[in-house]
Amino acid sequence: RINGDRLWDSLMDMARIGPGIAGGNNRQTLTDSDKEGRALFQRWCEDAGLTMGVDKMGTMFMTRPGTDPDALPVYVGSHLDTQPTGGKYDGVLGVLAGLELVRTMNDLGIKTKHPIVVTNWTNEEGARFAPAMLASGVFAGIHTLEYAYDRKAQEGKSFGDELQRIGWVGEEPVGARKMHAYFEYHIEQGPILEAENKQIGVVTHGQGLWWLEFTLTGKEAHTGSTPMNMRVNAGLAMARILEMVQAVAMDHQPGAVGGVGQMKFAPNSRNVLPGNVVFTVDIRSPELGKLNSMREQIESKAQEICRQAGVGYAMEAVGHFDPVTFDPTLVGRVRAAAEKLGYSHMNIISGAGHDACWTNKVAPSTMVMCPCVDGLSHNEAEDISREWATAGADVLFHAVVETAEI
Amino acid sequence: RINGDRLWDSLMDMARIGPGIAGGNNRQTLTDSDKEGRALFQRWCEDAGLTMGVDKMGTMFMTRPGTDPDALPVYVGSHLDTQPTGGKYDGVLGVLAGLELVRTMNDLGIKTKHPIVVTNWTNEEGARFAPAMLASGVFAGIHTLEYAYDRKAQEGKSFGDELQRIGWVGEEPVGARKMHAYFEYHIEQGPILEAENKQIGVVTHGQGLWWLEFTLTGKEAHTGSTPMNMRVNAGLAMARILEMVQAVAMDHQPGAVGGVGQMKFAPNSRNVLPGNVVFTVDIRSPELGKLNSMREQIESKAQEICRQAGVGYAMEAVGHFDPVTFDPTLVGRVRAAAEKLGYSHMNIISGAGHDACWTNKVAPSTMVMCPCVDGLSHNEAEDISREWATAGADVLFHAVVETAEI
Ligand SMILES: NC(=O)NCCC(=O)O
Ligand SMILES: NC(=O)NCCC(=O)O
Repeated sequence: RINGDRLWDSLMDMARIGPGIAGGNNRQTLTDSDKEGRALFQRWCEDAGLTMGVDKMGTMFMTRPGTDPDALPVYVGSHLDTQPTGGKYDGVLGVLAGLELVRTMNDLGIKTKHPIVVTNWTNEEGARFAPAMLASGVFAGIHTLEYAYDRKAQEGKSFGDELQRIGWVGEEPVGARKMHAYFEYHIEQGPILEAENKQIGVVTHGQGLWWLEFTLTGKEAHTGSTPMNMRVNAGLAMARILEMVQAVAMDHQPGAVGGVGQMKFAPNSRNVLPGNVVFTVDIRSPELGKLNSMREQIESKAQEICRQAGVGYAMEAVGHFDPVTFDPTLVGRVRAAAEKLGYSHMNIISGAGHDACWTNKVAPSTMVMCPCVDGLSHNEAEDISREWATAGADVLFHAVVETAEI
Repeated sequence: RINGDRLWDSLMDMARIGPGIAGGNNRQTLTDSDKEGRALFQRWCEDAGLTMGVDKMGTMFMTRPGTDPDALPVYVGSHLDTQPTGGKYDGVLGVLAGLELVRTMNDLGIKTKHPIVVTNWTNEEGARFAPAMLASGVFAGIHTLEYAYDRKAQEGKSFGDELQRIGWVGEEPVGARKMHAYFEYHIEQGPILEAENKQIGVVTHGQGLWWLEFTLTGKEAHTGSTPMNMRVNAGLAMARILEMVQAVAMDHQPGAVGGVGQMKFAPNSRNVLPGNVVFTVDIRSPELGKLNSMREQIESKAQEICRQAGVGYAMEAVGHFDPVTFDPTLVGRVRAAAEKLGYSHMNIISGAGHDACWTNKVAPSTMVMCPCVDGLSHNEAEDISREWATAGADVLFHAVVETAEI
């Protein structure tokens, strides 16, 4: 078994970097806090005898050698970046549990045939730079490095410039590494495990996603002196689209969600009807048919809403992945480990996207999940118990060691 | 007659300060550009022999002495501040036409019994600091100086600190001056004069306004892993309120408008349902009954929408003025001046708020309007012709001289 107290202490130490305003974290990717978090993680890994490789996306690969020089490594990891008002566990738990399992192997003198590589993927959250899971997406050949470097934050800075600025442009070509397997341990970020009173989620699938960024063009005009019938009201068209997205998601129940988290009015002045309204619709489903049917309906209905309102319409898909089926052999090992350790478990579909969704394209991959309080995540109040954290890390440890072969 | 070319040249010179991105201006109140614009205006005024007084709100009062030491001054002015994406004429025309009429009086050797004071009111737009017409509101005793100094911009800076920063905290107590009369010349900012093919708007009334700032509290949560039935979706409640505001405004036709120009999601991340949505509803009518009926309906319906969505509701009125009836004697002088000069004219209600709406509380006040192309204002593409600008300034000149008595 891993050392749950040591894991918990590391979680608390990391949470001191990039503190939020309500008990959580704001350690967004490629900020000074991200840089500080990376340095701490690097130091811990080096203390545990791991050697570092960094790729051109800034992803950190911390290697514990195996006994067979020809054996491909088993990768285990997640991400240290957070949302602007994020929790202490989302991503961080998976990275530090990877470190903890190495520390435990050191303590117990366990050697494995396959090397083990603890991984911190850059920009999993996609909060500063859409899309999410950007570095693992380049790794899996989904995006080009150029595309990634060109991603822009809302304030205009590019991913490439910011990666350079914090000093984490590595030497390795992205995706050159071959993986024997990839494991990712993550909090559920949803309510199911807690409701079902299970300690472990055996993650069999992941939802697919579309991020649809709409740009509606209205006519900037005075809110007081512009008669109702002369308005080209992009804000009103936006309101109708939000209501429609809700209706489309409800029509696709069960197994579908839709909502809007990002919204920008320009010029954003109280007495100016907006000339521009930009917002991103986030739709997901574990079923490819539902996912694409939602996208089609939302696009055509939004176009019709804008046409009727005389509002200019543009849409760009700024994030996408299809539903994922994780590797049955690895899934079976996670389930077996939970069984063996006596932890209650159930099969679960990941509601969120994860780096494992992309690695699964190039290597057998799967995930382990633990519950989180009230299903709350992407919220500073995100919470888990020390016992939950420990149970999942134990399962991860056994499944990884099994795969890496003693 | 005034010198239309000189007026136009001054307008173009001022428009060079705080240029916008699309041919207009971004010279928002208490910015460095505002400071630069004030300095230019001060120099022009001093060149024309005017002497400056500045009050604690930073309002500039540029005086041309009268012949009777006991006669109260006739005030004429407007504002030099602009919207973030504002036009070159909104406000500026009224200030520089005030300067032009003094220049013309100098040229013609006209002396008046009453002094003439050309005025540049601070923060008319209310774009950085709500409410609009803030300095004239303090002048008229509507707001306290403390209230004004405490107003906060979106980025958190206060009005008082910013006024200090640009060095325009004057000595004069606000509202100490007594006015014989106040005249304000302004572009219409609406489509009526152009549509009716009239050169001059004789402004008999002004619309009343409410700015209702709503703060909706949702539950920050993951857009992917939070099931539809567990969402507390403040964005959706906002959408319903926008649609409802539109319906309420349409129900109050004719003579009512309603819309939303300012919107803020927090944390504003694509994969986080917003914890907070803040936006300002702007409703107006020239009829007090309609104005207040709209406010009541919007408040109670918004509360009901939030109650049904389980979303937290708060509302603060951040701007308000009742409909205004301008001084009949001054209105008559504006009409008579237009007649005498042979300009086509019609009575008009101001759709926008103006400093004249507040001075009217403490002194006889009125306005002169000229058309603007397509009724467009609060838009960098705002436009007027040199001939329109000149005609209104001529009318202003005659009405002011008549009131200031030769
Ligand atoms: N786990 C997680 O929140 N990842 C960010 C990508 C997503 O929105 O699902
Ligand atoms: N004239 C003008 O646009 N004033 C700003 C206040 C308002 O929104 O009416």
